[in-house]
Amino acid sequence: MAQIIDGKAIAQSIHSEIAKDVSDLITNHAQVPGLAVVIVGERKDSQVYVRMKRKACAEVGIKSIDIDLPGDASEKMVLETVLNLNANPQVHGILVQLPLPSHINEERILTAISMEKDVDGFHPLNIGKLAMKGREPMFVPCTPKGCIELLQRSGISVSGKRAVVVGRSNIVGLPVALLLIKLDATVSIVHTRTPDPKNIIREADIIIAAAGQANMIKADWIKPGAAVIDVGTNAVDDPSRKSGYRLVGDVAFEEAKSVAGWISPVPGGVGPMTIAMLLRNTVDSAKRACVEMWC
Amino acid sequence: MAQIIDGKAIAQSIHSEIAKDVSDLITNHAQVPGLAVVIVGERKDSQVYVRMKRKACAEVGIKSIDIDLPGDASEKMVLETVLNLNANPQVHGILVQLPLPSHINEERILTAISMEKDVDGFHPLNIGKLAMKGREPMFVPCTPKGCIELLQRSGISVSGKRAVVVGRSNIVGLPVALLLIKLDATVSIVHTRTPDPKNIIREADIIIAAAGQANMIKADWIKPGAAVIDVGTNAVDDPSRKSGYRLVGDVAFEEAKSVAGWISPVPGGVGPMTIAMLLRNTVDSAKRACVEMWC
Repeated sequence: MAQIIDGKAIAQSIHSEIAKDVSDLITNHAQVPGLAVVIVGERKDSQVYVRMKRKACAEVGIKSIDIDLPGDASEKMVLETVLNLNANPQVHGILVQLPLPSHINEERILTAISMEKDVDGFHPLNIGKLAMKGREPMFVPCTPKGCIELLQRSGISVSGKRAVVVGRSNIVGLPVALLLIKLDATVSIVHTRTPDPKNIIREADIIIAAAGQANMIKADWIKPGAAVIDVGTNAVDDPSRKSGYRLVGDVAFEEAKSVAGWISPVPGGVGPMTIAMLLRNTVDSAKRACVEMWC
Repeated sequence: MAQIIDGKAIAQSIHSEIAKDVSDLITNHAQVPGLAVVIVGERKDSQVYVRMKRKACAEVGIKSIDIDLPGDASEKMVLETVLNLNANPQVHGILVQLPLPSHINEERILTAISMEKDVDGFHPLNIGKLAMKGREPMFVPCTPKGCIELLQRSGISVSGKRAVVVGRSNIVGLPVALLLIKLDATVSIVHTRTPDPKNIIREADIIIAAAGQANMIKADWIKPGAAVIDVGTNAVDDPSRKSGYRLVGDVAFEEAKSVAGWISPVPGGVGPMTIAMLLRNTVDSAKRACVEMWC
């Protein structure tokens, strides 16, 4: 039976570490880390995520700068908001909740975020540095960083292992593959155009599932003893619930856990880590600003 | 028996296409594409490469701006050279021959090259855009681009194929892996820390060998019928030659050619393509400058 990787517990201990760092910054440097969380419009799911992020900030002592713009806000207005936040020394991280309404060019908004405050780590310059040997990005994207933390804090070594990343998205699959390469894993990237994903996935010591396909990875796709990190968050119908749905991962958890050596559940695996890494990036940014300002 | 991929012939036909583009630019837009090739010091191998690049420019009608700095040139002097070239409208591409003397910070010099003239494509912002879905880099690095051209001009489809890249360098392995992912191949990256490279390489329909290990890949490492692109250029002793050495690839060519479906030789495979792609990038840059200036 697999060891269950408890993302909630690991995230909680990271929160404690962060709270201590925040307290040190305030006590020794009079520096309060600030995260601006910008939401445009009233998408229900986005509002839930934003609320979670703001709540997490409060819990560790990060100042959350809340900016809620109406769904019909112009691109210019959003852009000016970002530029103001870039210039605000109390803001160490800027998060613009995606997706933006369709009349706004996402790339233009994200590229406007100052490199020093891009706590999401999605700027192409950050991704380039993440990819390149000998270069270090200013920020590592939160979900990929969370996956690696789950492995490392579970005592799973990465160097020399075969890893398979399922999915090649800009926000998870691709950057997590780049991180694993830097950590000396032998990495294969499997995606929708791979004819035989099962055969490749079955060879991996480490599986990062970020395909967005409910229960795609079955028990017999997994090498016995492999470590499985499930990034998928898929809603499936469940009439037994009040909401009418429940969340499942990309891995068929119940059958997979009897084959894998380690497995992260959904929910309660990667999800809490994404927020923990956002807080980590914000505090690291505040520390850097502190060093630069001799505070 | 494998079909030999004749890089020299393919590069030659690309040179003809480029010469036609150059002639069009001059006739219709009075625009002469210009490539600045900067060399610092007197390394023999660097001088050979630089001479080849300048000669290739002349052959297709690109103006080569030759800058030869002494080996004891200061970092400031090299930096100022780059900044002057950035500002010079007759220069559409800037190539600084590597390695630079050890007293000069390479990263600082390369980062100073204007994005619009970075024909080598090594700027982290370019690499980031190369990596990301939905983004296009200003320039694709020359050797990786040359590998893909060899495949495509030999009629080898990439989409849906299993590809293995041997090596993860910033200038070849990593960017060629990113290109193959964008072209819908299922990509594995094998490197010095991979315990069993043979078993992974043997599963590939396409092998890009960029390890820098003479004759590392043997016949029985290759899936029958696979396409093999050999980027390696390794000097091995050869007393029968006047020079005392000869160049060999990462693939044991003589035995491999009886197993592979296609194979590129060394020399005469990827080498000529790297220069062809440098010329291509320079002309594309001149075309872009032309569009921007309404010329």
